Amino acid sequence: MRDPRNIAVLGVSGYTGFELATLLLHHPAVTQSTFYMRETNGHQCLSELFPQLRARGEAPLRPLSLEAITASAAGTAFLATPHEVSAELAPRLLDAGLRVIDLSGAFRFSTPDTFTSWYSLPVPHAARLGEAVYGLPELYADQIRGAKLVANPGCYATSVILPLRPLAEADLIAPLQNVICDCKSGATGAGKDPRRDLHFAEVDENFRAYNLFSHRHTPEILEHTGLPESQVVFTTHLLPVARGILSTIYVSLASKQTPESIEQLYRQYYAAKRMVRIWPAGNLPELQHVANTNFSDIGFALDAQGRRLVLVSCLDNLGKGAAGQAIQNLNLMLGIEEHTGLL
Amino acid sequence: MRDPRNIAVLGVSGYTGFELATLLLHHPAVTQSTFYMRETNGHQCLSELFPQLRARGEAPLRPLSLEAITASAAGTAFLATPHEVSAELAPRLLDAGLRVIDLSGAFRFSTPDTFTSWYSLPVPHAARLGEAVYGLPELYADQIRGAKLVANPGCYATSVILPLRPLAEADLIAPLQNVICDCKSGATGAGKDPRRDLHFAEVDENFRAYNLFSHRHTPEILEHTGLPESQVVFTTHLLPVARGILSTIYVSLASKQTPESIEQLYRQYYAAKRMVRIWPAGNLPELQHVANTNFSDIGFALDAQGRRLVLVSCLDNLGKGAAGQAIQNLNLMLGIEEHTGLL
Amino acid sequence: MRDPRNIAVLGVSGYTGFELATLLLHHPAVTQSTFYMRETNGHQCLSELFPQLRARGEAPLRPLSLEAITASAAGTAFLATPHEVSAELAPRLLDAGLRVIDLSGAFRFSTPDTFTSWYSLPVPHAARLGEAVYGLPELYADQIRGAKLVANPGCYATSVILPLRPLAEADLIAPLQNVICDCKSGATGAGKDPRRDLHFAEVDENFRAYNLFSHRHTPEILEHTGLPESQVVFTTHLLPVARGILSTIYVSLASKQTPESIEQLYRQYYAAKRMVRIWPAGNLPELQHVANTNFSDIGFALDAQGRRLVLVSCLDNLGKGAAGQAIQNLNLMLGIEEHTGLL
Amino acid sequence: MRDPRNIAVLGVSGYTGFELATLLLHHPAVTQSTFYMRETNGHQCLSELFPQLRARGEAPLRPLSLEAITASAAGTAFLATPHEVSAELAPRLLDAGLRVIDLSGAFRFSTPDTFTSWYSLPVPHAARLGEAVYGLPELYADQIRGAKLVANPGCYATSVILPLRPLAEADLIAPLQNVICDCKSGATGAGKDPRRDLHFAEVDENFRAYNLFSHRHTPEILEHTGLPESQVVFTTHLLPVARGILSTIYVSLASKQTPESIEQLYRQYYAAKRMVRIWPAGNLPELQHVANTNFSDIGFALDAQGRRLVLVSCLDNLGKGAAGQAIQNLNLMLGIEEHTGLL
Repeated sequence: MRDPRNIAVLGVSGYTGFELATLLLHHPAVTQSTFYMRETNGHQCLSELFPQLRARGEAPLRPLSLEAITASAAGTAFLATPHEVSAELAPRLLDAGLRVIDLSGAFRFSTPDTFTSWYSLPVPHAARLGEAVYGLPELYADQIRGAKLVANPGCYATSVILPLRPLAEADLIAPLQNVICDCKSGATGAGKDPRRDLHFAEVDENFRAYNLFSHRHTPEILEHTGLPESQVVFTTHLLPVARGILSTIYVSLASKQTPESIEQLYRQYYAAKRMVRIWPAGNLPELQHVANTNFSDIGFALDAQGRRLVLVSCLDNLGKGAAGQAIQNLNLMLGIEEHTGLL
Repeated sequence: MRDPRNIAVLGVSGYTGFELATLLLHHPAVTQSTFYMRETNGHQCLSELFPQLRARGEAPLRPLSLEAITASAAGTAFLATPHEVSAELAPRLLDAGLRVIDLSGAFRFSTPDTFTSWYSLPVPHAARLGEAVYGLPELYADQIRGAKLVANPGCYATSVILPLRPLAEADLIAPLQNVICDCKSGATGAGKDPRRDLHFAEVDENFRAYNLFSHRHTPEILEHTGLPESQVVFTTHLLPVARGILSTIYVSLASKQTPESIEQLYRQYYAAKRMVRIWPAGNLPELQHVANTNFSDIGFALDAQGRRLVLVSCLDNLGKGAAGQAIQNLNLMLGIEEHTGLL
Repeated sequence: MRDPRNIAVLGVSGYTGFELATLLLHHPAVTQSTFYMRETNGHQCLSELFPQLRARGEAPLRPLSLEAITASAAGTAFLATPHEVSAELAPRLLDAGLRVIDLSGAFRFSTPDTFTSWYSLPVPHAARLGEAVYGLPELYADQIRGAKLVANPGCYATSVILPLRPLAEADLIAPLQNVICDCKSGATGAGKDPRRDLHFAEVDENFRAYNLFSHRHTPEILEHTGLPESQVVFTTHLLPVARGILSTIYVSLASKQTPESIEQLYRQYYAAKRMVRIWPAGNLPELQHVANTNFSDIGFALDAQGRRLVLVSCLDNLGKGAAGQAIQNLNLMLGIEEHTGLL
Repeated sequence: MRDPRNIAVLGVSGYTGFELATLLLHHPAVTQSTFYMRETNGHQCLSELFPQLRARGEAPLRPLSLEAITASAAGTAFLATPHEVSAELAPRLLDAGLRVIDLSGAFRFSTPDTFTSWYSLPVPHAARLGEAVYGLPELYADQIRGAKLVANPGCYATSVILPLRPLAEADLIAPLQNVICDCKSGATGAGKDPRRDLHFAEVDENFRAYNLFSHRHTPEILEHTGLPESQVVFTTHLLPVARGILSTIYVSLASKQTPESIEQLYRQYYAAKRMVRIWPAGNLPELQHVANTNFSDIGFALDAQGRRLVLVSCLDNLGKGAAGQAIQNLNLMLGIEEHTGLL
């Protein structure tokens, strides 16, 4: 008998997996968490791998084995695995009756073409793509509640879709002007595997742009804002900080607005959404306001003519951008308060 | 008898003044440098203030006094002083026969109105505004060579004008689309005075936008690119690094281009300009490539349609953005190789 | 009628006050927290001052007034105020029947002489010095439970006393050899007031020693380890990180030991102390293991002869080194689990 | 015919190799520098590998080949290669008539036993160990001038030997007390190869001790201070900065001293040594004072009894700790001013 509050976490060696572990070990509604990874090196406990998790109980660590997971009472699985691994594992977990929250990009798109063209990977999971719900709770809470398979959004995509969606729905984005998304992320967003360009001395006191016109989060942004690719420029940069994304987004408005009208639009749109915080006109959120939280903060500045809007969107790439949002999705799937274990 | 290679530096307590001192003490064509500051606290030598300058000779430090300066043989003065102080001092130094390179914003505009509206300061120097040459050597070398008064450009302005000017001259900027200048600077750009928002713990692991639609470098950008204010959005951010500016600039092109045509345009425009380095298509400069140098590096990416161009412009805000550029101007005024003491 | 779970916090503008606020707003046993500061600038809510605390309820912010505090039902007061302010306020709060946890150095010593000689401040609180309990819960839990006035220890002192005390009690410190305490702290330990030497660019990429043979935490270390001043060398350094202390402590042992005997000594001494974590021989704690926690981690290395011991002690200067430890003391005074709200 | 000013650099992919390249390209007495590395990936120019070196001339880059080097006119070779590679290459270069400056640890010891026991590597170079001169110019300038083979010292060792040697020669180190060397280094000291523990997010906001009682620089320290292993404790830590070493060294003095006597001892000992700067009593050097320089700065504090001395020694691990010192050795070998190209 599967217990949805009994959790299996697959993949725990990266930054996202660690953040997920930290949140789950503090979560009041989770009855059991078991962690699976390919190489356990004989460790039996998560805290042997991460000493800083000692004193929060000794969560079991197990070699990754689908048999072991399906034989357990786990009812919900998190996949903090690479795209291609998630593509293989998720269908088999679903077949075994578990509900799945996948933190990779494997299930974020409805068509195999989008996945193959942006990720250059095979599509063993093509048959299940249509089943997945895009796990952005502020937009799709109803579908997430009943979903068997949730595709947790990309960190950059979350930081861009949340501020753009209310404008798009209100038809406030001028159609012939580019929407510029100038995004900056901390280094944990690039993963934990050793890479020369992620060596401390290559990031410290440095700043660089990367993946121009080619970042994999692009198709998520297009699909969930409804904007055409020809209208969006999405640029990413690497900040010398461990965590956090700040996106500066430039929009030409279809009609003249005031700071008050913009603030009101956002306040209304996100009125019941506790994890999105709208900043008052004239104030801007900073990375430090969202570090180590699940909040997504949105502020803005409007030019004197009321036609050019600059949005500043901040979140923690490991929180609202990954593990925190995954927990928010879990809460919806469990039918409990959306922010349980996240404040 | 004034000796143009005998230098007086007014204001040496800030980061720009220190950088200027370092460069002057290494400069092969400078015969004497004397440093003046309001409060010397009895120090007689610059190295008493900055122990790291020991072993490079003992440059004299003097209380700031116009009498002392004009009584000396100094032929060239650098003003590394606040805007309002430069506005007061420069005319008197000019009257005494010195040539002046001012690193503040006081003389960067031809009309008093621009200065008062953007700086909210009085204009005791209104009569001299017309005499000043804007000290961007790649654009105005001829005028700088003969100038009595050079207004050293703003750091952000330099990083934006250098990449935009060739496009503007070639009429490649589409007239009805916004030019977005998303700029990021290290903390020395904000000066050395203690401020709560510049406390280490407020900048470290943080990132923030500031001065949206109101930054003082805006009028320089407009004047030297020829773009109207209605077409330019200029946003500044504070990076958790000590030095460096990276500006990401978004331009809609008036005609379809190829990576090759763009690269060629820049290579031709800056062919004889050693301090501007054009990166090959497909490669982007990073902050670390220009730190502690006087180089301004420009790279770009072009979308597949050849219509949307993203420029990445890097420089050291204390080098090419301030003290280095001031030395480059000095070299022009002395009639020697532009890059003397800067490589 | 005073309610001990109704809390007044005096002083909330610094890093310690903010950390205290964060912990109190999450504390399950606290019924009410009211924050007092000298200048509220019209703010009524803590979250107006600290936007990142929004969504955790709107804690009241009030101008600092002893009348207001004593007129309220608050039963426990935290003083996150400067030494001289605490010295003035604590006696008056005690007289009004509140229990007081003071985070300054004012009440850490039993004699006025120690305070005046190390702090160079007047002693208006001389009469109450004897009443204060030194708030190091691992050593003095019984006294803290019944205390009216608790002096929360210094951050460096906590990081040094916890590893040295078990050795001292076991008479393992060789009497004629110096005990070297080489301590390194993040910048929040120096307070939040703007200071030129705490400017981002003065701490970033820098590292420095300060206050040699003169640091104010010295007398705490001497008193609670029982070592004479002639045997202890205590040196402090500023790390380019926001939070955390790592102390490397060198001890010559009075008798030959093995890694096992040392590990066992520490495990036994701190067996029931959940907030102190002993690392297995051969492993050393790092700053990142304790950041944003209330843990104090202790590891060690022993030379091949078993006579020279190097201890590595880590804690978060704002957690176990200040606000976290203050909450731990509150828990003891409330008669609840010591680590409530701290895991 | 070999030209000693024609330089071959073997190994240029690491941080030390890059620093060496930068210094050589600015060196006024070097007539030619050619760079050799195992994998050139078809690059012909050093600036193709390091774009930031453009505009300083186009130094040739060649695949590493002993034949090519010995066939060239190069008279001096720098080895910026791993220990085992230097051990193989140096003898063959010496046989071909080049003078060699090796930056690895391969030739720092007179006996093969020391090398094998600390480095756990074979000793193909055993026969040449006796020929090498330890390249610490402040101590061994005369031998270096005539040397065929110079072993450039370890970065930590340099920072410890320079402050301890004057005390040792003056018999001021109390024989029965430990000399504690608590050393902290920036991340470039650990090399450039990708390693999980050098990922930006593992160093940033972190600090850790490593290699206690086992660091490979220990035997250099013992040999050149003359202290027995039983008296020295040498501990290393990783700082979250790119470059710089600060060593805090604790010495019990054999006789009572005053700040004046200590300062005088150091000033006399290093009177003619321009690259060592003694700080006045009461002032301490910081990492920022030596970053990007070849200076080694020494400051101190003495306790009130005049018996316990704390030394603070700072240098740049890539400057005086590696490439800078190698250039200083080159200058001695060329018979020119020791600090040529280093100020």
